[in-house]
Amino acid sequence: MKVSIGPKPFIQPNPVLIIGSYDQRGVPNMMAVAWGGICCSVPPCVTISPAKRTHTYANIITTQAFTVNIPSTSFVKEADYVGIYSGKKENKFEALGLTPVRSEAVNAPYVAEFPFILECKVMHSFEIGEYTQQFIGEIVDIKAEEEILGEDGFPDIVKVQPFVYDEVGRNYYVVGDLLAKAFSVGKKK
Amino acid sequence: MKVSIGPKPFIQPNPVLIIGSYDQRGVPNMMAVAWGGICCSVPPCVTISPAKRTHTYANIITTQAFTVNIPSTSFVKEADYVGIYSGKKENKFEALGLTPVRSEAVNAPYVAEFPFILECKVMHSFEIGEYTQQFIGEIVDIKAEEEILGEDGFPDIVKVQPFVYDEVGRNYYVVGDLLAKAFSVGKKK
Repeated sequence: MKVSIGPKPFIQPNPVLIIGSYDQRGVPNMMAVAWGGICCSVPPCVTISPAKRTHTYANIITTQAFTVNIPSTSFVKEADYVGIYSGKKENKFEALGLTPVRSEAVNAPYVAEFPFILECKVMHSFEIGEYTQQFIGEIVDIKAEEEILGEDGFPDIVKVQPFVYDEVGRNYYVVGDLLAKAFSVGKKK
Repeated sequence: MKVSIGPKPFIQPNPVLIIGSYDQRGVPNMMAVAWGGICCSVPPCVTISPAKRTHTYANIITTQAFTVNIPSTSFVKEADYVGIYSGKKENKFEALGLTPVRSEAVNAPYVAEFPFILECKVMHSFEIGEYTQQFIGEIVDIKAEEEILGEDGFPDIVKVQPFVYDEVGRNYYVVGDLLAKAFSVGKKK
């Protein structure tokens, strides 16, 4: 039986995306975002929805650029740290010993230690609700560690080892076993 | 070493969201969406980005409402089917033997057999690129199967058994083991 649990900002699961940006003085920052994802193929675009009170919001308004960094499971502590503390008070790259690399494609830093990076310039920007700004970033390039590429030359999820976030229970989970092949398991017999 | 793989609409992983909508004649439809997620908390909102050529796009333009249905792993075949075939040519609920339930909250159907449902009315609508429309839906209510609720009264991800999609390799994966507690594992010592 279905029960009503009221309006909540819940889906399961969420991605774990670390947003890289520069502030007005060029200091690099990271923010953890569970509200984001691909939103267009032509041109390739990603959407992220940071709260307006965040340091990242102010940074992106200034620079009109950001990176989306996908961490491997070995960096779960660092990703969680990034989600807990604000770049208004410290340089999180320095605090965590992670390396900011200036993107050649856009005015934003990426995380050298993370395997899979989207370099994005802001294409649209919308106010959604009271607190949130939605940025649509055109993906200008993707940078990936050579060792996580599959035979097709694209990131192999088994090697990338991304993880997911459950906003309801506030836990991180690994991406588990292969369940089925898409565009295949559901084909008409 | 990082290599450039060019601009692609890739992140890892994507969610698997089944969008419920009615057409002009009231026929229910389902669409599989990997491009979507939560985007605001006040009010709670979800964003989805269907291509303009889809039946769901035309439906939502007409009804200004949709549901987001999260399938369990036991429905991976049905979810894949929904992603392969178009509602322009058949009633996918009938083809799959799934039950459309008219939402009491919005003008859209949900999937009775799926455990976790968001009922949404369109709050904003934006053109992004050449082919895609982004709908921001206000989450008017969430309906959940009683048996998948945790002790806190909210959906327990271990009971929901959602799965994820890898757009790069075109495979579905289960949500695996607990990796770490969020807002905890990364706290300063």
